Formats: sequence, structure tokens, C-alpha cells
Amino acid sequence: MYAFANGKADGSSALRHLLGGKGCELAEMTNLGVSVPPGFTITTEAWAAYSSADRKHPAGLWEQIMGGMARLEAAVERRLGDTAKPLLVSVRSGARASMPGMMDTVLNLGLNDRTVIGLARWTKNERFAWDCYRRFITIFGDVVLGIERRAFDELLDKAKAVARAKTDADLQPEPLKALVAEFKSLVQARTGKPFPQDPPEQLKLAVNAVFDSWYAKKAVDYRRIHRLPDDWGTAVTVMAMVFGNLGESSGTGVCFTRDPSSGERRFFGEFLINAQGEDVVAGIRTPQPIATLKDNMPAVYDELVTIKDRLERHYRDMQDIEFTVQEGRLFILQTRSGKRTGGAGVRIAVEMVRERLIDRDTALLRVEPASLNQLLVKTVDPRAEYTAIARGLAATPAAAVGKVVFDPEKAVEMALREEHVILVRQETSPEDVAGMHAAQGVLTSRGGLTSHAAVVARGWGKGCVVGAGNVIVDEENRLFRAGRAVVREGQVVTLNGATGEVVMGALPLVDPKLSAEFRQLLEWARSASTTRVRANADTPDDAAKAREFEAEGIGLVRTEHMFFKEDRIPIVRELIMARDEQARRKAVDRLLPFQREDFIGIFTAMNGYPVTIRLLDPPLHEFLPKYKEVIEEYTRLDALGINPARHQELGAVKARIEALQEANPMLGHRGCRLGITFPEIYEMQVRAIVEAACEVAKRGVRVEPEIMIPLTGTVPEMKVTRDMAVRMADKTVAEMGAKGGYTVGTMIEVPRAALIADKLAEHADFFSFGTNDLTQMTFGYSRDDIGKFLPFYLEKKLLPDDPFAVLDQEGVGEMIEIGIQRGRKTKPKLKVGICGEHGGEPSSVEFCHRVGMDYVSCSPYMVPIAWLASAQAQIKRPRSAARGRSH
Amino acid sequence: MYAFANGKADGSSALRHLLGGKGCELAEMTNLGVSVPPGFTITTEAWAAYSSADRKHPAGLWEQIMGGMARLEAAVERRLGDTAKPLLVSVRSGARASMPGMMDTVLNLGLNDRTVIGLARWTKNERFAWDCYRRFITIFGDVVLGIERRAFDELLDKAKAVARAKTDADLQPEPLKALVAEFKSLVQARTGKPFPQDPPEQLKLAVNAVFDSWYAKKAVDYRRIHRLPDDWGTAVTVMAMVFGNLGESSGTGVCFTRDPSSGERRFFGEFLINAQGEDVVAGIRTPQPIATLKDNMPAVYDELVTIKDRLERHYRDMQDIEFTVQEGRLFILQTRSGKRTGGAGVRIAVEMVRERLIDRDTALLRVEPASLNQLLVKTVDPRAEYTAIARGLAATPAAAVGKVVFDPEKAVEMALREEHVILVRQETSPEDVAGMHAAQGVLTSRGGLTSHAAVVARGWGKGCVVGAGNVIVDEENRLFRAGRAVVREGQVVTLNGATGEVVMGALPLVDPKLSAEFRQLLEWARSASTTRVRANADTPDDAAKAREFEAEGIGLVRTEHMFFKEDRIPIVRELIMARDEQARRKAVDRLLPFQREDFIGIFTAMNGYPVTIRLLDPPLHEFLPKYKEVIEEYTRLDALGINPARHQELGAVKARIEALQEANPMLGHRGCRLGITFPEIYEMQVRAIVEAACEVAKRGVRVEPEIMIPLTGTVPEMKVTRDMAVRMADKTVAEMGAKGGYTVGTMIEVPRAALIADKLAEHADFFSFGTNDLTQMTFGYSRDDIGKFLPFYLEKKLLPDDPFAVLDQEGVGEMIEIGIQRGRKTKPKLKVGICGEHGGEPSSVEFCHRVGMDYVSCSPYMVPIAWLASAQAQIKRPRSAARGRSH
Repeated sequence: MYAFANGKADGSSALRHLLGGKGCELAEMTNLGVSVPPGFTITTEAWAAYSSADRKHPAGLWEQIMGGMARLEAAVERRLGDTAKPLLVSVRSGARASMPGMMDTVLNLGLNDRTVIGLARWTKNERFAWDCYRRFITIFGDVVLGIERRAFDELLDKAKAVARAKTDADLQPEPLKALVAEFKSLVQARTGKPFPQDPPEQLKLAVNAVFDSWYAKKAVDYRRIHRLPDDWGTAVTVMAMVFGNLGESSGTGVCFTRDPSSGERRFFGEFLINAQGEDVVAGIRTPQPIATLKDNMPAVYDELVTIKDRLERHYRDMQDIEFTVQEGRLFILQTRSGKRTGGAGVRIAVEMVRERLIDRDTALLRVEPASLNQLLVKTVDPRAEYTAIARGLAATPAAAVGKVVFDPEKAVEMALREEHVILVRQETSPEDVAGMHAAQGVLTSRGGLTSHAAVVARGWGKGCVVGAGNVIVDEENRLFRAGRAVVREGQVVTLNGATGEVVMGALPLVDPKLSAEFRQLLEWARSASTTRVRANADTPDDAAKAREFEAEGIGLVRTEHMFFKEDRIPIVRELIMARDEQARRKAVDRLLPFQREDFIGIFTAMNGYPVTIRLLDPPLHEFLPKYKEVIEEYTRLDALGINPARHQELGAVKARIEALQEANPMLGHRGCRLGITFPEIYEMQVRAIVEAACEVAKRGVRVEPEIMIPLTGTVPEMKVTRDMAVRMADKTVAEMGAKGGYTVGTMIEVPRAALIADKLAEHADFFSFGTNDLTQMTFGYSRDDIGKFLPFYLEKKLLPDDPFAVLDQEGVGEMIEIGIQRGRKTKPKLKVGICGEHGGEPSSVEFCHRVGMDYVSCSPYMVPIAWLASAQAQIKRPRSAARGRSH
Repeated sequence: MYAFANGKADGSSALRHLLGGKGCELAEMTNLGVSVPPGFTITTEAWAAYSSADRKHPAGLWEQIMGGMARLEAAVERRLGDTAKPLLVSVRSGARASMPGMMDTVLNLGLNDRTVIGLARWTKNERFAWDCYRRFITIFGDVVLGIERRAFDELLDKAKAVARAKTDADLQPEPLKALVAEFKSLVQARTGKPFPQDPPEQLKLAVNAVFDSWYAKKAVDYRRIHRLPDDWGTAVTVMAMVFGNLGESSGTGVCFTRDPSSGERRFFGEFLINAQGEDVVAGIRTPQPIATLKDNMPAVYDELVTIKDRLERHYRDMQDIEFTVQEGRLFILQTRSGKRTGGAGVRIAVEMVRERLIDRDTALLRVEPASLNQLLVKTVDPRAEYTAIARGLAATPAAAVGKVVFDPEKAVEMALREEHVILVRQETSPEDVAGMHAAQGVLTSRGGLTSHAAVVARGWGKGCVVGAGNVIVDEENRLFRAGRAVVREGQVVTLNGATGEVVMGALPLVDPKLSAEFRQLLEWARSASTTRVRANADTPDDAAKAREFEAEGIGLVRTEHMFFKEDRIPIVRELIMARDEQARRKAVDRLLPFQREDFIGIFTAMNGYPVTIRLLDPPLHEFLPKYKEVIEEYTRLDALGINPARHQELGAVKARIEALQEANPMLGHRGCRLGITFPEIYEMQVRAIVEAACEVAKRGVRVEPEIMIPLTGTVPEMKVTRDMAVRMADKTVAEMGAKGGYTVGTMIEVPRAALIADKLAEHADFFSFGTNDLTQMTFGYSRDDIGKFLPFYLEKKLLPDDPFAVLDQEGVGEMIEIGIQRGRKTKPKLKVGICGEHGGEPSSVEFCHRVGMDYVSCSPYMVPIAWLASAQAQIKRPRSAARGRSH
């Protein structure tokens, strides 16, 4: 039991693991002399004891809680349950890491049929007292007794309608009393027991409910998404209530020491007169900007400014502060490092270095690599002309396009089918997080910029518009109305998170522009990194984009992506339909100029940097039309006996598809297996690469092509393909009369390749780990089919993460370590990289750094994330290890 | 240069690696005093020098050859090229291991336009001399000059027709002279040069040709199939010719010291009067049984019997002896350990132990495990009634059923599509071995029991009928005639190798009966083995068969095979079409009694032995109808607008298939992934297993079920599935009121499982390596699709073997070693086995023994092979290793 009261606290920031974020910072602020209502915190150790005792109080816990309560009563000189000057308390959860909105809080505890009268008499405010009581029953009913909140809200709405009250605040004492009576009947009906009248019993039930909320589905989901351990548990803080709903000189608000959206160094926040905190967070009323406080309560405003400056300096980070004003007196209820957009995070970190608040390493560690995603998201093309059907608050910088959906579960389901969706809700609640995570964007009709929807979407960098007042959501009929417009489920809309606009249809989106602060951070990251970053790029445009993000070369050019272009696919099909080598060679020769042009563009864009080009990888049937469609059309023409020419043509295509068909194409005739059995394809590709390299070299471009052989699993495969490549490359160089350097290496993506890496290294100039395929084969998971069981596995924690998103260090990681170790046993300076999609995922980048990779390669938009992750890995490395490679 | 002449030889059996099998045994026999024509052997070292010098004679080689020739000339007192008493020689290849018919031999070398006249004069036999000359030009033209033999044979046939000669021997001197002139013109026309007349030049060219024949395609193919190293090379033996074609007191033959087909201890062989050796081997004339020699040349016969007895005692093995009688004088041209059928091998080995010629270990090592295959092959059901359309010589014990095919390449192609084929040829030649290997059986219209077709088919235990005289093969029209019957390509026939009958259609085949010698050898093998043998069996019948072959338990029951039975598939489909868990449970409950009955049968058959049951493994869509057929019928009904009920039903099936469809089912929703997401299936299976076990235990059957979880790749998968199994098993045991022991283990078939085997072992009572899947995932090869590149890979030696037939010890083997090592780190006594198809392949069994597996499990028919391989592994183990497990 750690108490805090009257400028003196048992705890401090250092005890975060024991007191939770909320509890320890309340203690810290108390010691700093900031005005905090007194209270005490029940530790996470108590939670652990309670949890391991099958959710029963361990011996002595209740006595300690009552001891804490006695100290609190002494500090405020009021008593719980006292009918004259009753003490009301809040019971709040508080985990080590902030889990906003995820866990439960009970306010106004201590009220009952008698204390409510005492409170009314003492505060001389009958409306206030009954308003508190109805709030208390609602929250207690919801959190402790498990009665859904909606049941209370419906009664409230009815009461407001009857009383013709516009807002909650307009409800007068008599209707409120009637409402409380109805609430109590509801509780009796639902639980079979009267609403508990004994304040200590209320307290005990509330503490247990907060303990239990650690296991609520929404909290479990949140921890899974944010990869927080389940065994941290929550602390519980019991704190004297202060009231923002005591009239016009009272209120409550949330403020940030800098703008959490832009990062600008300006005081930012929102405030509601005559309200309790839950009104702000839930977005039920739309609050006023913090600046209005200056006019309404100038002294309070000045005090708040002084405190927020002090807290930011103290914590050396942007603070998110909750406060309440009770009859002109300011109380700080919470301070924490504020959630911010990726852009704000970068700006704050860089500016704080300039302000000498933090050093560069701290700045680099302060920015969550994944948060940069937001800066790299697309926005609506400024040249686009459109008319918005609705307008709300601009909650995040990103734009989003997708099909409207009203049900979070449906959003998850559609996202699994790779559909882009926009989740539309009146307001969001923590139950909706899975659906929000799955959606491209979120639109709500209620709530402000600090509402649940806005905070969560901002953290993820999703497009989000909140509080769009003219949007009327009709969940039942799966549509929303906005003025005259009716938008049904499945229709596509665009959310412009930067302007708050909602537009019918898909607007064109454009790539982000990078701020000066972003460039600065990227530069610091590059100079701190030992593991370098390249990009995966298949076109000259991608390559240019990669350079813009400071990629130091290309780690993967997928040559087959060039085959899919419109003007090439007919030639590729001709190649596939060819009956013999001669016909194949003819088609292949026609592809050569296209490939050469592609390579010329890429080499030119990458002037001076290495480019790794993977020879054709997928099976040939990928380039043919879909079998199902061919067979359907063929069967139809066959049944109806029409269009014999088309019928015949389809018959030939069908036969070819059937001949090429594979039970498991992922494990089939592809990669070097294809290159070896149809050597004319790889020969053409090597020729195109080397011709392009010689060509651009003549124009003064420095070029260093790295020819990469996919899917190697045996030494003969490596040797035969390498020999072919070298023979063709040397011949081409001789023909071109140019000097051209090149290297030949291999992907390591088949488990066997990792095992024989020592022997492969004898014939390979470099290794690149293809972790997509390596993950497929190490787990035996098909990436295309994992959707059938992955959601279940994640939900049941059978897997910590999607192994295709986050590298499985235990299994796939060991295969990589074996591969590197053995490869470098043969060639100590063997160049090693990764080109699977894990190359842009921060924890995977850290792994790559640790095992001594020379570089990671990822999609151009992930390059800055990879740089930052690489820098963090280097900064955080154990002191003993000068460099991962020495492992 | 190692000479042998007149009872004295430089070499001996010990120099096999240097002199080849033929050369060293000629030396050995010479030293034994057996009558061998004198000669000398050019070593494999000379071959190696020649090969590495780009097929040029290294310095000094020719001088050494001429030195050897001079010694030979001195020994026989005749000279090469001498026009009065010319020396003729044969030039024979000889590799370390016998490669029958694979490599080239030149006979009658030394003949030219002048020596032929001298030979005629000296032997007083003009016909003989010109017959030798035309044979020499034919062989030399074929082997040395590369003119196809057929061109000579056509001229010969024409000459015979003109001269109305029935056989070659009927051709008189004048037509022979004319034929020789035509042969020489043919050589001139084809090579642009006259036929070489200088005997030393002939010799040099012939030696080189024999050297080069090591690289001929047929030889390379043979080595690949028999896994012989390419760098052994061949020796060349030059030996004075003796002539079996000098008239009625001459002849040539092949004999075996015991019957190579049955193993019976009786003198067995064939003999041709007035012929050269090639006539016997090529099957051009059908020879007489060796017994006729007794009547024709009793002295020669007695001498031959004495020699063969002496050679068998000397070599302590059954000998295959080539001999020639020249005008009543016997010469032995070759002796070697004779090829034999599997049955003969077993009988000979066991009887030689009884005769105290060899000890038990030698007997066990003497029998090639794979040769037992033949004893385990099926034969025609003796109760079958049929009429043969043709009858030939019964070349092997096995029967074969398949589609007729005339082209060896087509045979290979169809076999890859898993079709059973019968290769039909006039006669076979070494070029046909790939096609013969692919076929179930071989039928020839010409040749005897020692013809190429018979020898090769016997070695492989395939069904084979040779010399079926009334069969007329019409390759061009792809048919054969037999009396009035016309059999076209693709029609099914049965070959009864035991009777020589050819029957239209597929006769019923029956399982083999095991000889007493076989049982004896099996018993010796079992008592010598440390690694035990189990069987894979899915039915009570299979289990009984497994016990008959001494399997000590079942290593794999594939429960899904039970699902495919006719009466169950509708319920299984109901299960799959079910929309929710309740409907699934209903279907699953109906499957339970079926499964329980299956298990009762298997447990009863395996009384006292362990039974490992794998829970459902394949993806659900395997149990639905084929997608292609559904979609075709659906589209057809749709286009024609008919049969709405069927249309609708198909629509539902189609939708379900589409929902379940997977891009790579091998890596998809199957194994424990299915068991975890649809727990009702595994729950039912565990209940059925335990109910069956309790049931049979009540009847006094000793039962030890091992419940095996497939496709485990993570610890949570193992834990969750194990917990489910234990919960359900214990509950069932309690309900049944019985005492029942069971264990729960896992397959190791995903690479990741091998890597985390230490952690899996904490929750597993046993491991069983599923090497089929482990091979698929370690290589990234789909077993169903490997046909697209495997033939090419084998041909180009990119892979030494099909890795699904022969365990890849380098890659997959290392995964297994890692798995065992880590598993036993956690549980030193962990029971470990293998249940992939490699469990019956001898080199793989040896590997399993070496890495310390407790048992291997294979199909019931492979069990004896596995026992023998296991015994051999134990006998051959390095002295230092008492037991593989200690590795």
C-alpha cells in the first residue's frame, strides 16, 4: 500500500512496475508539489497474489486496503460512508505500460441512498449529488456487476426525452432521482440483489473488478497487438474524488505539453465545463479547446501552464495530463508520456535534442520505428477535386480508402480476405480495437480529438475522422446517412484524416513529403547504424523512391514482376505455350529488350549502389490465366456448342495449364529448378543484366550488379546455375567490349540451403535470406493459406505473432544463424543480407543486427523504419558486443 | 600391365580395383590352374590417366600395351597380324563391379583382308574364318566406329535371304565374302575411310573405345540406378581368342554353380554348339540346356563340373562362368559371383551356412536387402482361370500387370504418372534399361533365360517373359500379335513370370509364400539387429500381414485411410459440409463406432506389440470430390439450364470446396492445425482409440496404444493437443471402468519441430520422424510435383537419388540428427522411430541405425528388407561404436 497525500508520497516514478504508470506518477507529482488529490495505490504484487489465489483476496490484503483508506480519510478529513461529509473515491487501474481505455475505472464510489443526501446538503447542490449517484450506479453496474452500459444509457435517454433536456447537464434533481430509482430497479432485476449500499463492500467489489479487468477480452487483445506480457498485471489506485461537475466554475480536461498530432511546441488540449472526466474520454459531449480556459478561468489556466512546463522538463518528454477543476481549484489526476502521431514523435524528439533536453541516442530510442509508418502513409492528392459528403474532426494525418463496414468483426473478416475497409461507428469503444486494427480507417459520428477512436487510430497512423456530426449511423440497416447521401455497407469511401472530410468513392492518394525533422532523424539513424539498409524494388520508380528514403542499394529486384506488365504478358504466354526449346528461345529473345530497359532504369537510379537481381522465381503457370475461369468458359462453350475458334484456343490453354498444374506450387517447379530445366530463360536474364550494366557504365553510371539465384537447395544446383551465369556474363561483357564487374550469389530460403551453407558459400559471392519462403518451409505454413488457422492461433496465443510479419527467432532465426555461421566458416567476409518482408519489421531488424547481417532490405516505404530499428539495435546492443558479427 | 598365361598370372582377386572384376578373376583362375586363354590387363589407373588427359594416351601407355602384347604372342606362339598363324584377340572391358552388358567388348581383333586368308588356311575352315571377319567388322564398326549395328544386321539378313540360309551358321564362304565386302563398303561410306587393316591400329582404337564406353549413356544410366561411383573407371583385358564357332566340336556357354532362379544346388546353364559368346548373350539363337553337353561332349562336361565345383569352393559363392569349347578343348573366359533372384540369394546364403562354407554374418551380408523385394512380390492367384495368348520362357518368379507399351521412353513417362506398364520388345538392349526399370514387367519375343532382358529383369525382381516365339512385335503400329490376338498400346496384359504365360487383361495376383530359408534368414537378421522394425498399417489385414513378416509393432496407423472407405465417406463429407460445431459434432459422433472397430481389429492383430496411431493428418478438402469435376458439371448444368436440384447441390459442394481450397495444401490447414481448430475430430479419435484399447484389454489382448500428433511445429501446439488427448483419454478410461495405459507423442516432420525438439520432448513420450514431409520441407520439394524436374535432375546428377526414395542424409539427415540429439538432451531414453517411406530403404535404415533410432517402420512388404538392412548395419558398424545411440 503506497499512499500519496499533501505533498508527500511513499512511491515515485521508479516504482512503475509495482504501482503502475498512473500510481507511480501520482506519487512522483505529489512529491514534486503538484496539486494531486490524495490517495493510495494497491500494488501489482497484490494483483499477482490475488491472481494466483484463483481471484481471491490473499490474507491481509483487505486489512491493508482499509489501512490505506484510514490514512486517506485522515488526509482529507472526511470519511467513506459518512452521511454528513461523505468521502467519495475513484478506483483506477494502472498497468506498467499505458493501455488507454482498456481497463476499468470506477468513479464516485462511496455513494448510497444516504450519502447522496449528505453530499447534496454539504455541497448545497442537489443536482450535482444525484448526477454523481446516477453516474456511479452506471459505472459500477457496468464494470463491477456486468450490466451492459447501454441499458443504463437507454433509461437516461428516455429520462432526457421526457424532461425535454438537451444534455445530461440539463436534467434537474427530480428527474435524476427518478432515474436513480430506475437504475436501482434495473440492478435488482439483473443481479437479483439490490444495489450494494455499504461503501466498504462497494470498494472491495470495485477493487476486484479492476483486478479482473486485466483479463477482459479487450485488454487481452490489446496486449496481443502491442506485444505486452500477460504477467505484468495491474495496480489499483484509490483516490479522493474531485468534481468537475460542480457547476460553471468546475470542469475537467485533458492537455498535452506539445501538439500530439503535429509535434509543434504549443499547448494543446480540450476542456469541458461542468463535467466529469469520463465525458471527455467517451466523446459524449464535444469539448472546447484549452485556450478557452484562459478566458473562463485565467488563474487556473496560468497554473496549468506552469505545471505542464514543469512536468515536461521533469520527465524530459511530452506529457499527456488529465486535470479537473473543482470550484476554481485545479487538480492534476494523471500525467504520462503522451501518445503522438509518428510525425509528432519525430518532431518532438529532434526538437528536444535542439533544446538540449535529450541527446541524439535518446531521440533515436524515443521514436517507435513502426510509428514512422504514419509519415510514410499516403494522403489525398492535393490536385484531386471532390465534394465531401460529411465533415468531422481531422484526427490523424493519413487518408484512407475502403469499403464501408459497420461491424468490427466483419472488418476483421474482410481484412483477412485482403479487402480494404473503413469502420464506421457512432463512437468506438475498447471492444472495437480488433476491427479498428483491421480497417484502413475509422469514421465516427461523435467524440473529439481525444476520444477513443482518435487516440487509437492516431497510434496506428490510420486514416480517421471523428465527431462527424451530420453522419447518422444506422447499424441495423447497415448504412449511414450524411445529408442526402446514403452510404451502404460495401460502398467505397475516402476519409481525409488531414481535413476531416468524408468523400464518396476512391480519391487518388499521393505519397508523403518528408519533414526536415524526419530527414534529420534519418541522418542520425544512418550514422548510428552498423547494419545497412537496402530496398526491394522492381522498377526504376521504386528504385528512385528507395534512394529518396536513403536506401543504400537494392537488395531484391524481382524480375518476374517485370513479366507481368501488359506489353509483356503475351510474350510470356507465348514462351509458356511453346512446345520446344526453339520456340521458347524465340519468345525469350523478344523479352530481352524489355528486361534490359528495366535494368538500365534501375541501375541509373541506383548510381553507385549495389543492385541485387533475382533471376526468375515463380512457376510458369503463374503467368497463365486463372484455371477456374478458363475451365468455366471452356465448359460453357463446350456445353452450348458455340464459338469453335475460341473453344479450341481455350482448349490449348486449358491443356497447358493442366500440364503445368501443381499440387503445391510453392514447393514445385520454380526458382533455380526452372532455371536449370529451361536454361534459356536464365541465360536471357543474365544477358539482359550484363548488357544493361555495360550500357549504363558507358554513360558514366557506376554499377555493381549482384546476380542472385533463387531457391538453391543443393551444391550442384548452385554450381550449375553459377557456371551458366558466369559463362553468359563473361561472353556478354566480351561482346559489349566493356569492362563489367558482377557477382553471383544465392538466396537462402530452403532449410537445406542453410544446413549446407558452408558448401554453398564456396560457389556464392553473397547470401540473401529469403525469410518469406524460409518461414513457409521451416514452419510448414503456406503464406497463402495460413488465414485458415492463424487468427485462431493468435487469439489462443499458440503463436505470439504472425510469423510472416514478425520473424520467428526461435525456429526460422536458428536456421538463419546456422546459415550465416556455416557460410562465414567458408568465407569469413561473406556478404549477408535479408530480403524477405521481415527486413522492415523492427524486432526482426534487431535480430538481423544481432546475428551479424551486413544489411536488411525491405519495401521502399519501410526503409526509414529499418534505419531507425537498425540504429536502435546498435545503441541498445550489449556493451560486450562491439558488433553483432562477432557472435 | 598385368599378364596371365600358362598357369601364372601377375594379378589376383585382391587387385579388383585395378584390374576390374573380369581381369582379376582371370588372373586368379590362371593361378588356380584353370584353363584360361592367355592375355593381359590394362589397369584402371591407365584409364584414369587417359581420362584426365582429355581421352589421350598418356606417355608410355602404348609402349606398355605393345609389351603386354609381345608377352602374349610369346605365350601362344602366334603373332598379331601374322598372315600364316594369325593371333586374334578379344578386347574386353572390366569394371570393379559387374555391369552386365553395359560396356563394350571387341572380339576377333587382328583380322584383315590378309590374315583372314591365313586363318582360313591354318584352321582349314574357310567358312569359320570369314564368319569371324564379318563378326569382327560388325562389332568393330559398332563399338569403335560408331556405326549402328542394325545397318550390318540388315545386310546380313539380306544375304541370308538371298542365300536362303535359315541361320547365320548356314551361310557359306562365298556369300560371307560378299557380305564382308559389303560391310567394308558400308564402313567406307560411313566413316569416309577404309576399314582399318593394321592390327596394332585396330588394337589401339579398340582399347580407346573400351575406355570411352565408361561414359556411354547406358553405362552412366546403369551406374545411376545402381549407385556406382563415376570415378572407378574400367580396366581393359586383351586376351587370345578361342573359338566356339569352329564347328560341331566347338561351342560356347554360360553356366551357374547353382540355379540362379531358385538357388537350388544343381548345375545350371546353357550352351550353343558352333557359336561365339555374343550369340548366347544377345539371345539371337535359343540355346540348349547345359545337360545336353554331357551327351555331346562328356569329357568337356566332366571337366566343366570339376572346375565349377572348384571355383565355388574357392570363392565361397555361387559362380557365373563363361566358357568356350574350341574343338573339344575347354577354356574358361570369365567367372564372377552370379546374379541371382532374391529367392535364390536367400536359399544360397542359408544353405552355404549349413554347408559350413560361410558364417551367419556373411550370409546376412551376402543378401542384398532390396533383392528380397522379389520374394515379396505378388504372383498370379493359382485359383485364377485364364487362357494364355502367348507363352515364352519363365524368366523371373514375379507376375506383372500393366498397360502394354513399346517405347522405353514412353514407359518412363507413364511410370512417372504412376501408371503400371509392361514393356514389350523384340529383344532388349542396354539402351532400354531405363524403360525396363520403370516398367512392371518385360516381354520379349526373342532370347533365352540368360538374355539381356532376363538377366536384368531378374535382378530387379520384375515380372518377365522372354523368347515368346509366337509374339510378333509391330513397333511402328504400336501393337503386337500373338496368334489371332492383336494387343495394342495401352491395353492391359498380365505376365506370369513363373510360367512364361502372357494373358489379356489383369489377372488377380496373390501375396507370396515365404520359404523356410527366408524365415531362417529373417530370424538371423532379427537376432542380429539392434534397431527394431515395425510396420505402417492402416487395417487389421495390414496388421496381420505385418506380424507375418515379424514386424514388432505398428509405427504408423494413418487414421484418414479409414475415412476413405465407402461407408464412411458420406459421413465425412457431412462433417465437412457442416456449418457449425454442433453439426460437425453430430457427424463426428457417427464416425466414432467405425474408428473404434478399426482399432479393435488392429490391436487384436498386434496383441502384445505397440501400435502408434496418428490422429487425422490431411486437409479436409481431400475428402471432397475433385474440384475440376464439380466445376465442370456445375458449369455445364448452368449453361444448359437443366437439373436444378443437382445444380443447387453441386453449387453448395463447389462453394465448400472453394472455401476450403488451398494454394499449397501440403503447407496448409492440416495435421494438428486442423485438430486444434476443430477439436471435436481429435477428441473423437482419441475416444475411439481408448475405447478400443479398453475393449480388447477386457478380452485379454495386451495393448499399448501410442497416440501420435502430426505436424507439430511449436510447443503450444504440442501442449494443447497433448492436454486434449490426455483429458479425453483419462475421461474415457474412467467411463469404461478399465485400466488402460497409453502414451502421447509427436511426429517430427516440420523442420521447426526438429529445431525445438528439446522443448517438444518435455511434452512428448516419443518421437517419430515423418521423413516424407520432412524431406518436402527441408528441400522445398512437393512430392506430388517433383516429377516436373526430378528425371532431369537425376539424369544430370544434380541429385544422387530421388530423395523420397533414398533418405537425403546430408540435409534431411542432419535435421533428424538435430531432432534426436535435442530430444534426448531433454529425455535421454526418449523412444525414437521413423515412419516415412524411407523406413524400408536399406541405406536409409542404415542411417537410422547410425543415428540411434529405436526402430524403423515401413510398409508390411518392406519389413523383411528393413530387418536385413538393420542387421547389416549392426554387423558393419564401426568397432568403436557399440551402439548407434551413443553417437
